[in-house]
Amino acid sequence: MVSEKMLALGSNRSTIRELFEYGKMRAAVVGAENIYDYSLGNPSVPAPKEVNEALVDIILNDAPIAVHGYTSAVGDNDTRDAIADNLNKRYGTDYTRDNFYLTCGAAASLLCAFRTVIINESSEVIGIAPYFPEYKAFVESNGGIFRMIPADEEHFQINFDALYNTINENTQAIIINTPNNPSGVVYSEETIIRLAEILTQKSEEYGHPIYLISDEPYRELVYTENGVPFTAKYYKNTIVCYSYSKSLSLPGERIGYVLIPSEADDFTDLYNSIAGAGRSCGYVCAPSLMQKMIKRCAGVMPDITSYKKNRDYLYAALTEIGYECADPSGAFYLFVKAPNGNADEFSEIAKKHDLLLVSGSAFGCDTYFRASYCVDYDMIVRSIPAFKKSFEDATK
Amino acid sequence: MVSEKMLALGSNRSTIRELFEYGKMRAAVVGAENIYDYSLGNPSVPAPKEVNEALVDIILNDAPIAVHGYTSAVGDNDTRDAIADNLNKRYGTDYTRDNFYLTCGAAASLLCAFRTVIINESSEVIGIAPYFPEYKAFVESNGGIFRMIPADEEHFQINFDALYNTINENTQAIIINTPNNPSGVVYSEETIIRLAEILTQKSEEYGHPIYLISDEPYRELVYTENGVPFTAKYYKNTIVCYSYSKSLSLPGERIGYVLIPSEADDFTDLYNSIAGAGRSCGYVCAPSLMQKMIKRCAGVMPDITSYKKNRDYLYAALTEIGYECADPSGAFYLFVKAPNGNADEFSEIAKKHDLLLVSGSAFGCDTYFRASYCVDYDMIVRSIPAFKKSFEDATK
Repeated sequence: MVSEKMLALGSNRSTIRELFEYGKMRAAVVGAENIYDYSLGNPSVPAPKEVNEALVDIILNDAPIAVHGYTSAVGDNDTRDAIADNLNKRYGTDYTRDNFYLTCGAAASLLCAFRTVIINESSEVIGIAPYFPEYKAFVESNGGIFRMIPADEEHFQINFDALYNTINENTQAIIINTPNNPSGVVYSEETIIRLAEILTQKSEEYGHPIYLISDEPYRELVYTENGVPFTAKYYKNTIVCYSYSKSLSLPGERIGYVLIPSEADDFTDLYNSIAGAGRSCGYVCAPSLMQKMIKRCAGVMPDITSYKKNRDYLYAALTEIGYECADPSGAFYLFVKAPNGNADEFSEIAKKHDLLLVSGSAFGCDTYFRASYCVDYDMIVRSIPAFKKSFEDATK
Repeated sequence: MVSEKMLALGSNRSTIRELFEYGKMRAAVVGAENIYDYSLGNPSVPAPKEVNEALVDIILNDAPIAVHGYTSAVGDNDTRDAIADNLNKRYGTDYTRDNFYLTCGAAASLLCAFRTVIINESSEVIGIAPYFPEYKAFVESNGGIFRMIPADEEHFQINFDALYNTINENTQAIIINTPNNPSGVVYSEETIIRLAEILTQKSEEYGHPIYLISDEPYRELVYTENGVPFTAKYYKNTIVCYSYSKSLSLPGERIGYVLIPSEADDFTDLYNSIAGAGRSCGYVCAPSLMQKMIKRCAGVMPDITSYKKNRDYLYAALTEIGYECADPSGAFYLFVKAPNGNADEFSEIAKKHDLLLVSGSAFGCDTYFRASYCVDYDMIVRSIPAFKKSFEDATK
């Protein structure tokens, strides 16, 4: 007599987690140095020193009841001011605290957005493959319908024909994720502009806004000079879901925000619904100590040197072997074509060489696998022979 | 085109918060020392020194990536072990880590429980007045029906006749809160035993477990020698929702747990559904640094000296004026009968004397008001004339 949906969600472990657990078991047998685990998207760089310095200083010197006390549900004013200032400086925007709702991380931000746009059992949210699999779980366990657009396997931008034909009167939102997990690809400005055009046209056609939910935890992890186009500048009905998990290496601390631009249609209703959705999920406020740290560290940027070093080495080594990779401009993932054309089978082949790779089938793209290179550099160096043997096994 | 339910939840501010905001406005006019604000349930005692010592030590000395990294979704093993050990010592239970699912505080715990027991649109959850108003909001915004049992205005235990007659085949759970917000009353062992008997009988009658959701954030705040009966020992199908917000004065940090006893019917399904509900709400893990602190501080008890001093002074002063109060055995609330029999009207009368009291109508009991005595002692002393004048105004 428990909810079937909740039971299913709690019983089915993610394939990524299972692979990680398998790696830990194998490490106990053959030694950790002989396992090449590319399964998890856990930052391998510690939090910037400013973060821990701020945390200690706040704990030791701020008024003790305020440090750990309730904040307002939308978040501390000072913290929201600091975030607005930082974005305004970087992107030439004019946000104020009133555009931000602080959350317990990106997943919480997404739940607030999904529960806002799902207005009845016909409401549809569209995701673009390859996509983070929790999107589907979140939408379906909160009363909506999830539609997937197949991957653009040439450039891993957006398959616009499929998108155009999938949008219908029940489409409430599109969710995008750039830089992308699992592909590591950054959507180009051209892509964002075309997406905005289509959403504007379809919103007019159906007489209601189709929201763009932009999941941006990797926004600061980008290796090209152009950076990432700031999505909310291109389309007014954008709901930005951000987290400091990856940029400040704080994935366990659960701190992020939803940004709702003032120019969004029915801004006040949209903002209040986001807040109501947070309340309906039991989010009383974002963790207080972390809010106070973000007030001081909103402008701290990650040191991506080691990710870039990993990326460059792995990309060069794999392409030399003969692998084909999606353009790895951002995040800390390499998305690689399975040499035999089947990523499920290939990841089993790799496993025999103690090389742990996540099949893209988990992300809606079953011809590619994901290698998370947020790992120890030396492990990457040691792993290359296993990549070579796996390639040979798969192509012989 | 946003969800009506979410919009309503986000637009309607709680009367308690509104009263608090009013107090801040008035303080700017007449001076903070002339406002007697009993509105909020915010701990007025700072976190025990062990908490901040542990936090600083962890930040400075533990492996930096682990400190802020993802934990498993159910929580760190060490933390769950520490919580189990502490409860086992105090209550003679034999819990293990596998009985605990760590959460972002009591509200998150409640959401996990509610979303587990709400299996379809007919599912009912029963609350006992006076009750924390978010219960109703949480249940209704997650697809269930909330039923209220009127208050037992004599002793503020449970009106069992009403409960007995309200339970039906759709009743999935009863939620209780002891020590109680807003009454400050502790349910007696006799009450818990009788409740367990009724739930056992009704579960048999309807052929499915009726869960007892026990919301226990105030468990450690009790002023009588007997303490609080540990609910899960009396009824096997109890889901304990706990938070460290009040006991360790950390309401903003969002750290707590759900305890699912092994003897519960279909334990594994129940546990997995709780975890699935957490996932479906976007709770990736409980805040990591706080988990690590709880590992060290699971046995730290609050210093309730100042709450007791406040309680004793306020109770004595109010009864001398002529007010009647519910038995204030726990939490940090005094629940007081409105002298004119109408708490909404009385709280307006009090407001004219800059005395901010929350009408019980918000809690399903409109003849009593709540005074949160987690405030400065001197404010209580200064406020007594305002209580006297309000009493006179209401009874003249």
